[in-house]
Order: sequence, then structure tokens, then C-alpha cells
Amino acid sequence: MDVQEDETLADGYKLKLNSYDLGVDIELADAVQRIRFEHPEVRVVIITSLKPRIFCAGANIYMLGSSSHAFKVNFCKFTNETRCAIEDDSNHSGRRYIAALNGTASGGGYELAIACDEIYLVDDGNSAVSLPEVPLLGVLPGTGGLTRLVDKRKVRRDRADVFSTLAEGLKGKRAKEWGLIDGHFPTSKFQESVDARVKQLVEATPSQDRGIKLTPVEFETTADSRNYKYVKLKLNRDQRYADLTVHAPTGPQPTTAEQIQELGAAYWPLQAYRELDDALLHLRVNEPEIGLVCLRTEGDAETILEIDRTLVANHDHWLVREIILHMARVLRRLDLTAKSFFAIVEPGSCFAGNLLELLLASDRSYMLKDSDEGDASLAVSELNQGAFPMSNGLSRMQSRFLAEPEKLDEVFGDKKTFDTEEAEDVGLITFAPDDLDWEDEIRVAIEERTSLSPDALTGMEASLRFAGPETMDTKIYGRLTAWQNWIFQRPNAVGPEGALTNYGKPTQAHFDYKRT
Amino acid sequence: MDVQEDETLADGYKLKLNSYDLGVDIELADAVQRIRFEHPEVRVVIITSLKPRIFCAGANIYMLGSSSHAFKVNFCKFTNETRCAIEDDSNHSGRRYIAALNGTASGGGYELAIACDEIYLVDDGNSAVSLPEVPLLGVLPGTGGLTRLVDKRKVRRDRADVFSTLAEGLKGKRAKEWGLIDGHFPTSKFQESVDARVKQLVEATPSQDRGIKLTPVEFETTADSRNYKYVKLKLNRDQRYADLTVHAPTGPQPTTAEQIQELGAAYWPLQAYRELDDALLHLRVNEPEIGLVCLRTEGDAETILEIDRTLVANHDHWLVREIILHMARVLRRLDLTAKSFFAIVEPGSCFAGNLLELLLASDRSYMLKDSDEGDASLAVSELNQGAFPMSNGLSRMQSRFLAEPEKLDEVFGDKKTFDTEEAEDVGLITFAPDDLDWEDEIRVAIEERTSLSPDALTGMEASLRFAGPETMDTKIYGRLTAWQNWIFQRPNAVGPEGALTNYGKPTQAHFDYKRT
Repeated sequence: MDVQEDETLADGYKLKLNSYDLGVDIELADAVQRIRFEHPEVRVVIITSLKPRIFCAGANIYMLGSSSHAFKVNFCKFTNETRCAIEDDSNHSGRRYIAALNGTASGGGYELAIACDEIYLVDDGNSAVSLPEVPLLGVLPGTGGLTRLVDKRKVRRDRADVFSTLAEGLKGKRAKEWGLIDGHFPTSKFQESVDARVKQLVEATPSQDRGIKLTPVEFETTADSRNYKYVKLKLNRDQRYADLTVHAPTGPQPTTAEQIQELGAAYWPLQAYRELDDALLHLRVNEPEIGLVCLRTEGDAETILEIDRTLVANHDHWLVREIILHMARVLRRLDLTAKSFFAIVEPGSCFAGNLLELLLASDRSYMLKDSDEGDASLAVSELNQGAFPMSNGLSRMQSRFLAEPEKLDEVFGDKKTFDTEEAEDVGLITFAPDDLDWEDEIRVAIEERTSLSPDALTGMEASLRFAGPETMDTKIYGRLTAWQNWIFQRPNAVGPEGALTNYGKPTQAHFDYKRT
Repeated sequence: MDVQEDETLADGYKLKLNSYDLGVDIELADAVQRIRFEHPEVRVVIITSLKPRIFCAGANIYMLGSSSHAFKVNFCKFTNETRCAIEDDSNHSGRRYIAALNGTASGGGYELAIACDEIYLVDDGNSAVSLPEVPLLGVLPGTGGLTRLVDKRKVRRDRADVFSTLAEGLKGKRAKEWGLIDGHFPTSKFQESVDARVKQLVEATPSQDRGIKLTPVEFETTADSRNYKYVKLKLNRDQRYADLTVHAPTGPQPTTAEQIQELGAAYWPLQAYRELDDALLHLRVNEPEIGLVCLRTEGDAETILEIDRTLVANHDHWLVREIILHMARVLRRLDLTAKSFFAIVEPGSCFAGNLLELLLASDRSYMLKDSDEGDASLAVSELNQGAFPMSNGLSRMQSRFLAEPEKLDEVFGDKKTFDTEEAEDVGLITFAPDDLDWEDEIRVAIEERTSLSPDALTGMEASLRFAGPETMDTKIYGRLTAWQNWIFQRPNAVGPEGALTNYGKPTQAHFDYKRT
């Protein structure tokens, strides 16, 4: 285990990390998720190191030096999503995160620290915080470090410049003066000082909630499928696309917070979205050649709308709040996935309420018109009005109607359900082919999409999906990630003489100094 | 000539473009600049094509296919700056730009059109607007197209997705319906319809201003220098850095708008900033190995402050307005230049008022303390309070003090001049070495900076320079440009089997379909 959890603290939850690498990040993401659902009584999470004096030694450097470009990019995106999940917890669930740096925090380790609310560094004459990627590796801090430095901690840009080019970083006093940390304590007083701060925070926001158990996400696989209870993934590898279908539940659903707590992880909005999350990550990491995902839904739309009403009615309950926040994070994971998404709407589908977000998150949508098998329909619920913000802070419906905000009144008026013609008129869908053209049109659209340059599509989708305002999150995913991707490709980083290739070897990096 | 200017119109100014390439862009930038200074009476600029039926045939594809990575990136940045200069004119000087598309406008041609206020397309059964970069070339529209599509014209994202993957583009009716153009007219009525619209606009905002003559920017060169009247560039190529010094004028300066108009292009704020602009472009394109520019100033700070007072007092006059807007554009060009900037402040320098912006735009600053030759100082003027916005809309002073906005009151209080200690205390500078350390510290800082990976520095600076809000401009330069840079490096674009390499050849592109 790279992350040790210590629940013995009466007043906080301690996550002790091994030196930092991808293993840590996967376990960290999991630990944060479990704290939120299993330990709602915890008010403060302390992130510290198993090995005193080395909070993070940058073990991931070797991983970055030897892994493929695609893996590096995926890794950086995932770690950023974990950082954002920590901040989401802090912003929306009121839990405080404290980085207790009992040793040097460099690179990814310091980037993890600045995702926390407060950072305390030990004053032992040696320990420092640093972002040594530029001077040592010729790449950028890949986990949002630069953006969080100037946008979250608002470190003055000239100081950020100095700090980000200084391999050895800065120690206690100057680090505090420049806003890189919130405090520093001598070794002998470090533990008690951090504990005292934790006590203060815990007393400010006590909680008596009791958690649920997050059971493992289960699935069955064949050569070309991965099937969960509510999410079915069919991989059409020869055509480079996948069908991802989310099924509505059947049977009666809970309506009170008590019933939801009783059902726990088996409650549809939690289970289906955890399955969806797993399917998206699987597609990203293990199916790189799948360029397009056709999003489909099946089941009773009214059941989905009823669930949304229950979530809205109980949104003050801690578990319901966590479930809605989790759904929002999974939908943002979808927005940020470097694959094309087409929503396919046919009779029998249930793009309603929370599942309508799948359609709104898609790059385009196709809805069958005048079918013999009955009409297809879409439906909105209150949850589409802001419960699932995109990374830019807008709802997907606001994003869609940037040019015509008055359409929001129309969409969220008395009319809640839209047949194909109505959906087309109001602008909820892209295309509405009829029975005669349907199969051909979908087939051609899939063929065309999967024939295009996958790199150009990734850049195009990242540019078109996030119109409107930018936030720290969109800066990290759009701006910083794109720069990092570029740098990860450059000979100065990954060529035979590149800094990343030569780090830790007796050979030295040599740069082509041309600036672009 | 790739751009023909037609001043014979009583009611507008017509720019006729040859098919679109870099030559066009340089001439276009020049033409827009000259219209602003030489023809303030012109209220409407019509951009149209010399060759009917081909507004833009995408001549730059061959240029992109055969040019170096650095050239491609520089080219895209420059064309974007020209687009932004058009929008700056439209937003701040009230001139209207009309794209009169008398033929198909594809790629860069359509991107130029969406930089205009209004777009009219001929309805001849063939002509269309299109962004064929993704489907034909495997790269992105590089001149802000994608961002302007969803952010400026607010085209619905699914429609933008369809449009940007459709090589043949869209014609009149559907293009209008999707918000890609503002109107379409049949061939026989195209000219008269555009003329009628121009007449409407001209009558709405008549002007009687008379222009000045923009004389050519002159300079002398040696092997390692390029010297203008007020700007001196010294190239230390072996050490990969340049010294760029801006000199204050000597002698009496004009104080009224009439005197300024009389002096015209020789007025210091116009001449010095035109020279600075030229020097920056020269450094970008012709000196790629210069990674660091040390910004210096020389002369009487009081003269600079006096000039700023004159500019403020006369800011309602059209020419003074244009001069201030021009200074702002040049300073943004500096912000967006992919080289490191250090400001070096010594006794005899004049980082005051508008020239203080050079220091604020720098990645860091060094100011000499306790010198035998007298004290160095900085000074603020009213122009530092918002007259020169960065691309993100903030002043450089606001950007600097994001964490402590109350510092703005301190900086802009009664005290206008700051010696080294005061400048350090208030946070205007990064480092203040004394006489003993000065030369060593500057030398080491230069050596360290120029030893780092130039790619990592470009990405780092682009991430640190623009904290705070994002705008369409910062999205174009930060997000879209970075994606484009990445894609320009990918084998799917520029490898032997890449789409850009193979465009127009009998061979066909083959992609590695892995998505990252």
C-alpha cells in the first residue's frame, strides 16, 4: 500500500503517503472518495508522509521518463482530477485538508500540498517546498502546480517565476513570506502544532453523521465488452468506437434519506455513476484506439425523473449531497475525456434529468424522428439547472445556450418532455434523421468521425467544449495540460538528449535552444 | 502586393486580399495600422477578395506543410495578433469591419471573417464558409477560429463540432441559421446589398478627423545590434540573451493635441513603441536562439511622466486615443512573446509611467540598492491604472497584486516615486542586490535562465503570466495555441504519413489512432 490510512485519530483522518507515484494517486483518489462516503464525521484530513524527511522524492520522474506519451498525458489528467476532487470536498462538503509536510515536498508532492486548504512545513534546516520540473526535467509541473501557484495561492508572478526555476526550492521563512506555505514549525514542535490547528478546525465544525460502506464496483468482461449492473460497454474495436449504455433501474426506488442511507452504495444514482466513472477510466487508459463513444440510455424515463425529485427533496442530507457531488464529478470526467461522444436517442431510451446530462455533454446528438416503434423523447428535471456544473462553472444547459439565454426559460418552463420535433425546434439536439435515413446516417457519422486525426480531434474538442468563462480548473485542463502535452513531445524533454530522458543518468541533457 | 487598398470609396475603406498567406497577414496588419492613424475619417472597413469565387483558397497550407515548427507557431501567433488588432479597433475606436465574402472563405480566410463585426456571403450555389483544418490537414484552425466560433459568435457547441469537421463547410442559408454568417445575398445583388449596409453604418457614425502620416520605422544594424532612434537592441548571441534599452526623449515635448498631431509619427510615445514593436517581432522571428531579453531604460523619468500627463489630459482626442491603444497592443505583444524577460533597474534608468509597464511585464526584475552612482527609482503614473490592459483584461499592476488588492491604494497613493528599498517593501520588484553583489547576481541569473529548457520556459511563462480572469484572447493564446503547438508536433500531422505532410500529394495520410 502506498497510502496508509489512520482512523485512530479522534479529531481527524490521517493519510500517510509513500513517496509519490501513480500508485499513490490511485489510492489517494480512492481514499478521498471513501472518506466522503464512509466517514462523513471526519472534518479534517491530514496528508503527511510515511517517511519523515521525504514527503515526496519525485519517484514519478522515472515513470515519466520511461512511459509513453499517452500514458503521461492520461496520468497528469487523472492526478489533476484527484486534486480537484479534494478541492471539491473542501468547497462543497466543508472538510478541511491539511498538508503536514514533515519533509521536503517537491514536484507532485508540493502540487498535492497546494490542493489542500493549509500547508505546514517542518523547519529542520533542510526541508523545503519545490517545483523542480523546469530546471531538472525540462517539463512543467503536470498536476496543476503552476496554475494553483498564481491563481489559487495568488503568489506574485515574479516570485512564482523564481520558485519554479529553483530546483532546491524554498525553506520555511521565505516560503511563508512568498505565500507558498501557511506556516512552519521546528521539528520538536511540528506534531503538536499541526495537532493544535486540527483541533481548532474540528471544534469549529463538529459532525455526527454516520457513513455508508462503498462496496467494490463489480463487472463482467468478455473480449469485446465490460458489463456492470447498470452500465454496459460494448467495444467495436475494428471500427474504433464503443457503445456505452446506461440503464435505468427497475422496481421501486427509495424516497427518503433514511431509505437511501439504508440502500447505500446500491442506490442507483451512486452505483450507476460509479460504474460510469470506472467505464470512462477504463476507456481512457486501456482502450486508446477507441476514438468515439456512442452514449445510449435504456429504461423508464419517469423512474429517472422520480429519482431526481427524491434527490432534490433530500438535498440537505449529507449522503444525498455527496451523491449529487459525485455525479457532478463523473460528468466532468466525461467532459474531460479525450474521446468524441455522440448521444444516440431512440425509442426506449431515457435521456431524462441527470441522464440528459450525457446528451448535453456529448459533442453531438442524433435523435430518431417518426419511428414505427413509437416516439423518442427527452426530459428535463430540476437537477439540469445547475446541480452538475462543468469545470467552467456553468451548467451544460447554460453552456449550450450561451447565445440565447432566453432558451433556458423555454427549456425549463412548464413543458418537461420533448419529442423529436420539439427537441429539434428548441435546440436540444443536433440531428433528427427519420426511420429511413437513421441507420445510414449514424453509420456514416461514426465512420467519418473515426477516420479523422485523433490529435486534431482532441485539441478541437478541448477548444469547443468549454465556451464561456474560464476557471482555475479549465485553465489546468485546457491551458496547462496542452502546454505540457506539447513539451512532453519535444526533443528537449524526451529526445535522446532530452532532460527527462537523461535525468538520473550519468549522461547530460543537451538542448536545442531555439525558442518557439 | 497581396493586399490592395481602395480608398476611392466615399463611404468606407476597402481591403482586397489576394488568396491568403503570410504575406497577406503582414500587409493586413500594416493596412489596419495605417487606417487607424492615417484615415481616422474612415468608419467602415470592408474586407473582400481580389479574386471573386475564391475568398481564401488556403494557400498557407503549403507554407504550413513545409515550414519549421517554430515558424508555424510564430506565424499563428502573429496572425492572431492581427485579428485581435482588428477587434481592438472595432471595440475601442468604433470602426466597423465587414467581411464581404464574394467567394468561398475557408480556413484562415473564414477566421479573418469572424474577426470582423459582420459577415456577408454570396449566394451563388457554390460559395461556402468552412474550417477544413481538422478533416483535411489533421491540425486545428490556427488563428483563433475554434475559440471565436463558440466564444465570440457563440455558435452552439454541437453545431461548431459538425462545422469544424465538415471539409466542404456550409453555404448561405444554413450558415446563417447556425450563426456562422450574418447574411447572404445572390450574386446579382451582393455588391449593392453590402454597399447599402456600409452606407447605414457610415451614416450612424460620421467622422471629420484628419490623419497623420505613418513614416517607416528606421534602424541601423551591425552584426550584433539593431538600433532605432529610441530603442537599442544588443544581441549577445553566445550567451543567448539580448539587451533591449528604451530611451526617453530629450528636449521639450508637445503638450496639446494640436502639437501632437503636428509631430505625428515622430512623437515619442508613437515612435518609441513602434520601434519596440519592430524589435520584438525581429527577436521572435529572426533570433530564435535568444532566450532571454534584459529590458533596460535610460533617460529622464520626469520627461516620461510629463508625457503620460499630456496623454491623460488629451485622451479624448482621436490621435491620443490611438497612440495609447497602440502602446497597449505593443505591451501585449511583449506579454505574449515566447522569451524570458528580466527588467534591470539601475541609476539613470527611467522605469516610470508607461515604461514601468516594461518592468511589470517582465518575468522578474532586479533593482540596484545603495549604489555609489546615486539611487535607482521607479515611478507610477495614471496610465498604469488601466490604460494598458493585458490580454486578460487586468492592468499589469492588478495582475501583480492579485493576492493583495489593497496594495494598489498604496502604489497609487500620494507617493509616486519609489527608491529601491521602498520598491522592495511595497512589492514592485523581485530582487534588490547591492553594489557588491549586483554584477555577479545579474550574470548568474542570466546564465541560469539561458541554461534551462526553452520549451519548458515557454510553457511555464505562458502559465504564470496570465493569472486571474481568462478572456477570448487569453483562450486563443494560451489554450488553443498550446493545443495547436502540440498537434503541430505530432506524427499524425507532420510525420511522413501525416495529414499536413501529405496534403495535396498523391500519397495519403495514415494515422496512429491512439487517443491521448
